[in-house]
Amino acid sequence: MDFFFSEKVKRLQQELTSFMDEHIYPNEMLFEEQLNQFPDRFSGNPQIMDELKAKAKEAGLWNLFLPDAKEGAGLTNLEYAPLCEIMGRSFIAPEVFNCNAPDTGNMEVLVRYGTEQQKALWLRPLLDGEIRSAFAMTEPDVASSDATNISIDIQSDGDEYVINGRKWWSSGAGDPRCKVLILMGKTNPHADRHKQQSMIIVPMDTKGVKIKRMLPVFGYDHAPHGHAEIEFKNVRVPKSNLLLGEGRGFEIAQGRLGPGRIHHCMRTIGAAERALELMCERAVKRTPFGKPLAKQGVVGEWIATSRIEIEQARLLTLKAASMMDTVGNKVAKKEIAMIKVIAPQMALRVIDRAIQAFGAAGVSEDVPLAAMYANIRTLRIADGPDEVHLAAIAKQELKPYLQSPITVGEE
Amino acid sequence: MDFFFSEKVKRLQQELTSFMDEHIYPNEMLFEEQLNQFPDRFSGNPQIMDELKAKAKEAGLWNLFLPDAKEGAGLTNLEYAPLCEIMGRSFIAPEVFNCNAPDTGNMEVLVRYGTEQQKALWLRPLLDGEIRSAFAMTEPDVASSDATNISIDIQSDGDEYVINGRKWWSSGAGDPRCKVLILMGKTNPHADRHKQQSMIIVPMDTKGVKIKRMLPVFGYDHAPHGHAEIEFKNVRVPKSNLLLGEGRGFEIAQGRLGPGRIHHCMRTIGAAERALELMCERAVKRTPFGKPLAKQGVVGEWIATSRIEIEQARLLTLKAASMMDTVGNKVAKKEIAMIKVIAPQMALRVIDRAIQAFGAAGVSEDVPLAAMYANIRTLRIADGPDEVHLAAIAKQELKPYLQSPITVGEE
Amino acid sequence: MDFFFSEKVKRLQQELTSFMDEHIYPNEMLFEEQLNQFPDRFSGNPQIMDELKAKAKEAGLWNLFLPDAKEGAGLTNLEYAPLCEIMGRSFIAPEVFNCNAPDTGNMEVLVRYGTEQQKALWLRPLLDGEIRSAFAMTEPDVASSDATNISIDIQSDGDEYVINGRKWWSSGAGDPRCKVLILMGKTNPHADRHKQQSMIIVPMDTKGVKIKRMLPVFGYDHAPHGHAEIEFKNVRVPKSNLLLGEGRGFEIAQGRLGPGRIHHCMRTIGAAERALELMCERAVKRTPFGKPLAKQGVVGEWIATSRIEIEQARLLTLKAASMMDTVGNKVAKKEIAMIKVIAPQMALRVIDRAIQAFGAAGVSEDVPLAAMYANIRTLRIADGPDEVHLAAIAKQELKPYLQSPITVGEE
Amino acid sequence: MDFFFSEKVKRLQQELTSFMDEHIYPNEMLFEEQLNQFPDRFSGNPQIMDELKAKAKEAGLWNLFLPDAKEGAGLTNLEYAPLCEIMGRSFIAPEVFNCNAPDTGNMEVLVRYGTEQQKALWLRPLLDGEIRSAFAMTEPDVASSDATNISIDIQSDGDEYVINGRKWWSSGAGDPRCKVLILMGKTNPHADRHKQQSMIIVPMDTKGVKIKRMLPVFGYDHAPHGHAEIEFKNVRVPKSNLLLGEGRGFEIAQGRLGPGRIHHCMRTIGAAERALELMCERAVKRTPFGKPLAKQGVVGEWIATSRIEIEQARLLTLKAASMMDTVGNKVAKKEIAMIKVIAPQMALRVIDRAIQAFGAAGVSEDVPLAAMYANIRTLRIADGPDEVHLAAIAKQELKPYLQSPITVGEE
Repeated sequence: MDFFFSEKVKRLQQELTSFMDEHIYPNEMLFEEQLNQFPDRFSGNPQIMDELKAKAKEAGLWNLFLPDAKEGAGLTNLEYAPLCEIMGRSFIAPEVFNCNAPDTGNMEVLVRYGTEQQKALWLRPLLDGEIRSAFAMTEPDVASSDATNISIDIQSDGDEYVINGRKWWSSGAGDPRCKVLILMGKTNPHADRHKQQSMIIVPMDTKGVKIKRMLPVFGYDHAPHGHAEIEFKNVRVPKSNLLLGEGRGFEIAQGRLGPGRIHHCMRTIGAAERALELMCERAVKRTPFGKPLAKQGVVGEWIATSRIEIEQARLLTLKAASMMDTVGNKVAKKEIAMIKVIAPQMALRVIDRAIQAFGAAGVSEDVPLAAMYANIRTLRIADGPDEVHLAAIAKQELKPYLQSPITVGEE
Repeated sequence: MDFFFSEKVKRLQQELTSFMDEHIYPNEMLFEEQLNQFPDRFSGNPQIMDELKAKAKEAGLWNLFLPDAKEGAGLTNLEYAPLCEIMGRSFIAPEVFNCNAPDTGNMEVLVRYGTEQQKALWLRPLLDGEIRSAFAMTEPDVASSDATNISIDIQSDGDEYVINGRKWWSSGAGDPRCKVLILMGKTNPHADRHKQQSMIIVPMDTKGVKIKRMLPVFGYDHAPHGHAEIEFKNVRVPKSNLLLGEGRGFEIAQGRLGPGRIHHCMRTIGAAERALELMCERAVKRTPFGKPLAKQGVVGEWIATSRIEIEQARLLTLKAASMMDTVGNKVAKKEIAMIKVIAPQMALRVIDRAIQAFGAAGVSEDVPLAAMYANIRTLRIADGPDEVHLAAIAKQELKPYLQSPITVGEE
Repeated sequence: MDFFFSEKVKRLQQELTSFMDEHIYPNEMLFEEQLNQFPDRFSGNPQIMDELKAKAKEAGLWNLFLPDAKEGAGLTNLEYAPLCEIMGRSFIAPEVFNCNAPDTGNMEVLVRYGTEQQKALWLRPLLDGEIRSAFAMTEPDVASSDATNISIDIQSDGDEYVINGRKWWSSGAGDPRCKVLILMGKTNPHADRHKQQSMIIVPMDTKGVKIKRMLPVFGYDHAPHGHAEIEFKNVRVPKSNLLLGEGRGFEIAQGRLGPGRIHHCMRTIGAAERALELMCERAVKRTPFGKPLAKQGVVGEWIATSRIEIEQARLLTLKAASMMDTVGNKVAKKEIAMIKVIAPQMALRVIDRAIQAFGAAGVSEDVPLAAMYANIRTLRIADGPDEVHLAAIAKQELKPYLQSPITVGEE
Repeated sequence: MDFFFSEKVKRLQQELTSFMDEHIYPNEMLFEEQLNQFPDRFSGNPQIMDELKAKAKEAGLWNLFLPDAKEGAGLTNLEYAPLCEIMGRSFIAPEVFNCNAPDTGNMEVLVRYGTEQQKALWLRPLLDGEIRSAFAMTEPDVASSDATNISIDIQSDGDEYVINGRKWWSSGAGDPRCKVLILMGKTNPHADRHKQQSMIIVPMDTKGVKIKRMLPVFGYDHAPHGHAEIEFKNVRVPKSNLLLGEGRGFEIAQGRLGPGRIHHCMRTIGAAERALELMCERAVKRTPFGKPLAKQGVVGEWIATSRIEIEQARLLTLKAASMMDTVGNKVAKKEIAMIKVIAPQMALRVIDRAIQAFGAAGVSEDVPLAAMYANIRTLRIADGPDEVHLAAIAKQELKPYLQSPITVGEE
C-alpha cells in the first residue's frame, strides 16, 4: 500500500494544471460571452473552444481518458483519475481535452465493440474532436433507474431497424456539432430480462429524429451541449449500425458504466476542490464586521470539514479506480457504487458552504459555484439515483450474512 | 394557548386556496410561455398576469398584506401569515394578489413614512398594482450582511441630493413596469454608526440610473422581476424624495425587516408544503422496480420527516407573527431571527428530497421544484446570511448568563 | 390562535420552578450519595426522596398529571405539558411530584378501567406515593415494535390465570417499593389480531415472578427504579385481576399511549432546555485560548441552533397536547407520532452539543448531561422505534393521494 | 499508489483475526463476570486476562505497536494500522496484545527518552505486560484542550521534585497493577510558553499520590483500567525521574501524540466495523412486521452509508499512517488532525445506527454497542476536542491564501 502518484502521473498533473491556469480559467467567461453572441445558444460553438482544443492537442493533453494506448493515452484508471479530477475543475475543460461525457463513453464503446466501418465513420472524427455525440438512454415514460425498463421500440425490418419512441436527457444532443448518438432500446420484449435491449448507432440527421426541446437543469441550459428530449418517429438505420449484437445492450451498458461513473466522480471531486479554494480565498479577503470571514464563527469549520470530506472521497475513488485496474469492474462494483453515491453528495455540501461564504455572489454567474451545484445535483439522479446504489451496496454487504438465500433473497 | 385559526382566517384560506386551484396553478406554464414570446424576457409583462390581477382584485383578495385597514385588509401578522403561506406555493401568486416583495415593503414604508405627495405619486399606483417598485439596499463592494457598511454616496446639493455608486440584487428592477426604487445610502459618513444612512425615493427614469445587468440565480433570471445591478451616476432627486429624514435610514430598515422576514418565511413554508405534496403524488404514482416509491426504502421517511419539519417551522413562524402583534417586533426579534434561519433551511431540505423523488424531472422545468430550490436558496443569504442571525440569537440567549457585560461584551 | 399560557398554568409553572430551584437541583447529588450507601443500589430508597415527596404534596404539586379532577389536578394535556416539561429537567423530579412513568400510566389505567377493588388495592397507594409499580410490555423474544407480537402466555385455569414467559425492560420493577405490575400478554392466540392480548394486574410478590437481572442503559442502572428482565413461571393470579376484559389489552394500550408519549416528550424538552442552560453557562465561564467559549467558533451556533430546535419541538408538542384535548387522541395520532420522533432526536442533538462544550466533564457524573443522553436515547426505541412512527406518519400523509386503497395498501 | 496490504500484514491480519475469533470474542462476557466477582471492580484483574495474554505472547502477537524492532514488532505505522484496527473490535483485546493506551504511549516515551535505569525499572515490566501504567495530563481546573494551560506544580527541591496539584482523566490509574504514571506538569512558569512544562515519572505508591475517585464515562467505570481523579500532595520523586530534561514536556507530548492518535483512530474504525457487522447480522435475523429488517425502510441505507463512511475513514487513516512513515509526523499533522476528528464522528454514527437496529438490546449490556458508543464519544473530547483540531486544519488549509501573515495571523 502506498499513497503516492507515479512520476508519470505527477508530470501530467503538472502539465494539466499549468494548462488550466494559463488557458482554461481565464477563458471561462469568454466562452459564455461568445456563446451569447449566437442568435440561439444552441446554434453555434464558441470559437475559443476550437482554439483551446488545438492548444491541448498540441500539448499532448488529448484523449487522456482512453485506456487504448494506440488511440489514446494508454493510462490506467488509477493514472487517469487524478487528471480527470483536474479537468473537472472547469465546466469547459473536459471538452478542451476531448475527455467529456458522453463522447468518452461513446468512444470507448466504439473502440471495444465497433466494426471497422463504424470506427471509420464515427470513432475517428470523435477521437479528433471534429464531431460530438450523444447517448440516448433515459426515457420519460419509465423509471429508468431500473434499466430493464428501457423500452423504446427497435423493430427489425429487412436490412434496417425502425426506431419509434421518445428519449430525454440525451446529453450533448443540443450541440450543432453533434452528428451521432448511440441509442439503447428494446429489440426483443420476450427475451430474458437482461437480453431484451440492444444498442444502436443513429446519425443525428436520420429522418424522423427530432429534438423536441432542450431541458434545463435548474435554470441552466448547458449550451451548446445541452440535454435533449428527442422524438424518434419511424427512424430507419441500417442493420450494420447495431453494436455487438441483438440483446447485448445491457452488456455494453455495464461495460461503459464503470469508467463513466469513475470519471464523473473524479470531475466532481475536482469541482469540490475548486469550490474549497474559492471559499478559502473568500475567507481571507472578505471582512464583514471588521475581521476576515476565516476568523468568524463557523467558516473555519466549513473549510476543515470540506477538506476532510474531499480527501476521503478522493481516496475512495482512487481505490475504486485501482480495483478496476487490478481486480476488474465486476469485483469493484461495490466500490464504484460507493463513490457514485458519495462523491456528488460530498461535493454538494462543499459547494453549498462555498456559496454561503460568498453570499449573493455565490448564487450568481460571477463565481462558478451555483452552476457547479446544479450540474452536480444531477449526478445524484443520473445513471441511477443514490437510493438504487445504496440498495445495491447494502445487498452486497448483507450477502455473507444470509444463511440461506431463500430467507431474504426473495425480492 | 390555542392552535386554531379564526373563522375569518379560515374563510380567507379557503377563498385563496380555491383561487389558487382555479386560476393560479393552471396558468404557471402559460405565464412562462407568454414571457418567452417577448423579444427579451425583461421587455414585457405576460398578459395572463394582468388578467389574474383583475380577478384577484374582484375577489377581494388584494393587498392582504397591508395592516392598514383603510388601504389594505387590516389583518394582523398572525392572520396574514397563513394566507401569505398559500401565496408562497406558486411563484406567480404573490404578484397576482399584489403581495409580492419588495413592493409590499415599499408600500408599508410609504404608508408609514411617506408624505402626502409621495403617497399620491407612488403609493397609490402601487396599491392599485399599476406600477412595480424595487428596493436598492445591497452593494457589491461591501459586506452588506453588516448593514452599517452600506455606503453608496448621497450628497446634499441645494434642493437636491446627488447619488453616486453601485447597487446590486435590487430585486424587481428588471420589470418594465418598475417605475421607482427606494434606495438606502450614506448621507453622513461622520454621524453615529446608525445615523449615517438615509432612504430616498428614486424614480427609475431619473437621469444617471442605469441597469448594468440582470443577475441570475442558479441560472434563473426571475424575469420580468429580476435582480439588477444598477449604476447611479450623478443621479439627482429633489430633497422632498427623502424618507423620514436624514440619518433615519436604519430606523426605516428596521421597521420593514420584521414583516418582510415573516412574509418570506410564510411563503417559504408554502413552497415546502407544495413540494411535499408533489413528492407524495410522485410517491404513489411512480413504480420503479414494480412497486410504488412510497413503499420503497427511504421515501416514506422523507415524507414523514418533511411533514415534521414543516409543521415545526410553521408553528414557530406563527408564534413569531403572534409576538409581533402582541409584544412588538423588538421583543420578537429573537423569534424573527429564528424563523429567518430555519424556514429556508427546512424548505431546502424538503424540496431537495422532492427533487430526488422526481429524478431527472425534478431538476427540470417540468415541476417547479428546482426553481423553488434556487429561489429559496437565496433566502439563506438575503437580508443577512444565516450565520449573522444565528450569532444574534446566541447573543440574546447568552445575555442572562453574562455576569458582567464587560467579560464577553467586548466584541 | 394564541401562544400564551393561561394564568393558572403560569402560576403553576412558577411554583414548580421555585420548587425545583429550592429543593430538587440542590439534592440531585445527595440522592445518588444516599443510594450508594445501600448495600445494593436496588435495595433501598434514598431518604431524601421521601422528604421531597412530602414537601411536594404539601405544596400541592402532586399528581398533576392526572386529568381526573377528583384524584388529580384535573389539568388538560395542554395545561399539564409545560409543567411536565419542568419536571423533566431533573431525573429525580418526576417521582417527587408523583408524576413518573410508568406509575402515571398505570394510575390512569386503574382510574379508567379498574374495579373498585383494584382501585382500593393498587390505585390508592399509588396516588399517595406509597408504593411503586411497573409495566411489563416488551419481550426479549419478539420484535415488540409491532405490539401484536407480544406473546407471553396467559392461560385461563379455573378462577385463575396462569402466566408463563419472559418480559424485559419492565421499568420500575427494580424498586423495593414496587408492589405491582401491569402485564400485557396473550390470552387467545386464535382471536383477531388485535383481540389476542389482555392486560392483567400481577402483584410483585406472586409466586413465580422472578427478576432475572436489571438491565443497564449505557452503563447506568437507573436505580432504584431500573429496568428488569423478569421471568414468569406458572404465575397464578385471580381472574379478578384482569383489566377491562379478555382480548382488550390492545384497547387499553392505545388509551395509555397518547398521554404517555406526550409526557415523555415534554420531559425530554425539559431536559433539552436544561442542557442548553448548562451549555450557555459553560460558554460564558470557560475561557480556553483566552476568550469565552461563547465567542469561539461554533459554540454560538450550537446555542442558537439548539434554541431553534427546542422551540420548534415544544410548539409541536403543545399543539399535539391541544389536539388531544380538543379533537381527541385518535385524530391527533399523527401529531403524537411526530413529537414521539422529533422530541428525543432534538434533545439528543442539544445534549450532545452541551457535552462537547463541557469536554471531559460532559461525559462524567459531574454534570447530568451524559445521563440525560443515555436516558433519552432509549426513547428513540421504547414504545416503538422512530422508524415505525415515521412509517405511520408517512402512511397518514399519503392517504389522500391514494386513488385506490388497493394499489398501495397491500402491504 | 496501490491499495493492497503487504503479505506480512495480511498474514498478521489473519493471525489476529483467528485469535480474536477463537479467544477474544468468546471471553468478553467472562471478563465482565470475573470482574464482577471482586469485592470492588477496581480491586482485581480478571484471571481470563492473564490467560489470554499468555496465549497472545505465545502466538507472537505481542507488542505489535512498538516500531522498535528489538523490543517490539518493528512495524511501520502503515503496517500496524490494520492490526490495531482488529484489536479495536473488542474492549478487552488491546490489553491482551499489550497494545493498550496509555501503556503504549508510555512505553514509546521510555524507549525513546528513558535512561537505562528508567527502562530497567519501568519499561521492562511494561513490555512484559507485568505492570500497567497511567498518563496524567488533563487537569480539572484548566482548559486542557490548550496544552500550554497544564499547570500542576513541579518544584525543584534539592535532589527531588515536589509535585502539588490535581489531575483527572488519568486513564489506567484504577488498575491495581498500575505501578507508575507519567505526569506532565509545570517546572518553570516563567519560561517560554512551550518550555514551561516537563514530564516526570511518578511511582503510584509514592507518598502523597491519592486517587480521589474514579470517573465514569456515561455510566461505565471502565474497570479495572478506569479514569482517575488524582490528588498530588507534596509528592516527592528523585530528580532522576525527569524525562529528557526540564521544559521538554511539550516536545515529548508532541512526539507521543501522532502515534497515539492514529492508534485511537484505527481502534475506532475496528469498533465501527464490528458495529456494522452486528447490524448486518441483526438485519437478516430480525423480522418485525413479517420480513427481515434488511428489507425494511431505511435499514439498507444505514448499512450502505455505514460501509461508505467506514471505508473512507479507513483510507484516510491509512494515508495518514503512511505519511507519518514517509514524510514524518510533522508534515502529516493535518492528516492526523483530520482522522482525529473524522474517525470518532464516523464511528458514532455507525454505532448509533446499529443501536437503533437492535432496539432495546442495543442500549443494554447484551451487545457491545452502547459501551462502544460511550467509549468513542470521549474521543471527540480527549486529546483536544474536535473543534480545536478543525481550527488547526482550517489554519493549515488557509495558509497558502494569506497574502501577508499579518492580515489574518493577528489572533
